[in-house]
Amino acid sequence: MHTTMPSPDTPPSERARLRRTAERGHYDADTIHAIVDAATLCHVAFAAPDPLCIPTVCWRVGDRLYIHGSNGSRMMKHLGGGAQACVAITHLDALVMARSAFSHTMNFRSVVIHGAFAPVDDDDKPALLDALTDHIMPGRSQEARRANRNELLATTVLGIPLHEAAAKVRAWGPRDKDEDLSWPAWAGVLPLRQQALPAQTEPGCELPMPEWARDWARDWAQA
Amino acid sequence: MHTTMPSPDTPPSERARLRRTAERGHYDADTIHAIVDAATLCHVAFAAPDPLCIPTVCWRVGDRLYIHGSNGSRMMKHLGGGAQACVAITHLDALVMARSAFSHTMNFRSVVIHGAFAPVDDDDKPALLDALTDHIMPGRSQEARRANRNELLATTVLGIPLHEAAAKVRAWGPRDKDEDLSWPAWAGVLPLRQQALPAQTEPGCELPMPEWARDWARDWAQA
Repeated sequence: MHTTMPSPDTPPSERARLRRTAERGHYDADTIHAIVDAATLCHVAFAAPDPLCIPTVCWRVGDRLYIHGSNGSRMMKHLGGGAQACVAITHLDALVMARSAFSHTMNFRSVVIHGAFAPVDDDDKPALLDALTDHIMPGRSQEARRANRNELLATTVLGIPLHEAAAKVRAWGPRDKDEDLSWPAWAGVLPLRQQALPAQTEPGCELPMPEWARDWARDWAQA
Repeated sequence: MHTTMPSPDTPPSERARLRRTAERGHYDADTIHAIVDAATLCHVAFAAPDPLCIPTVCWRVGDRLYIHGSNGSRMMKHLGGGAQACVAITHLDALVMARSAFSHTMNFRSVVIHGAFAPVDDDDKPALLDALTDHIMPGRSQEARRANRNELLATTVLGIPLHEAAAKVRAWGPRDKDEDLSWPAWAGVLPLRQQALPAQTEPGCELPMPEWARDWARDWAQA
């Protein structure tokens, strides 16, 4: 356990320090965890030996981010040996339309994590994979058939500490230069978010749709 | 111009060949371009010298993907020299709920591009940056103030060919093992998509909201 986390304004390392628009940077665990917890996907960069960038499912338990895969996967084999990695999670929240083309930008929340993954012990896999299932849908680990011994043995679970990470957040309107404020182009924000559409029962499944699946698109219908 | 593109089933190189669940792979330009064109963000991996994974705006013109940034940015400086890179674009389309935890998965469309970026000539920047502006919002390049000479000189635009790339698409329901089909857990698909919320005029902007901004959330309202 890492009991000390960096302060909101102090980068945990030189490679994690934001270079551009540093006023958007945050280095505290609360901000980093909130952005990580809102994600189901991350992108992982590593050298194999050329750079690779691979999307994969991710979830957080405590102060670590986890990914998983087949023992035979290229990513699991490369990262399981402790190679350096970098993980990015990005949520796009809006297109930001400025008067000048140069000042157009986006609102987003991102986290970039530096470090190395380490494989978790076989004994820790069941609880961590339950946490993944419940991250995707709270309570689902109690409904689905849990992984059996062979499935657990065929699966690699890797964790990376979250303490060497930087969050970057932009959440405001356009910032045109003063001399552009009179340019005759509308300026504003075009918000985006992830939308849930109604759940679809698999053909052949005769069980009634559970409440959590019926509620899946609730936010969408109430928006 | 690359006049020959790989066939749908033939990887353009060994490093671009999909290892896992290869039946989801596509190597044809139509599939790759459609996934790229649906994106405003990509993740770029490169060595600096440790791996870095950086989210950035992207757009396609012809058979190249472009990114841009300040001349002084870490990413522009590293990639502008021709270092190897890998770019991933991922759209998450659904959570797929199977009877077994092991068979839970996601529906998605992704492209992974291998190669090296090259800087574009100063003369090509105005048209390419117009294409970016119009990728974000068609026609916007004719409304916004275009980049001036100093802004163009301060901006690096990098392009990477799309011919060494692999698309991966999953777009179907759960695939449980036969022996799990009777497990008493509901199975189905929980669809996701990007949703546009109503446009917001920047405080201080007194121009009427243009039709394209009023139409921004139309798909959402009609869904």
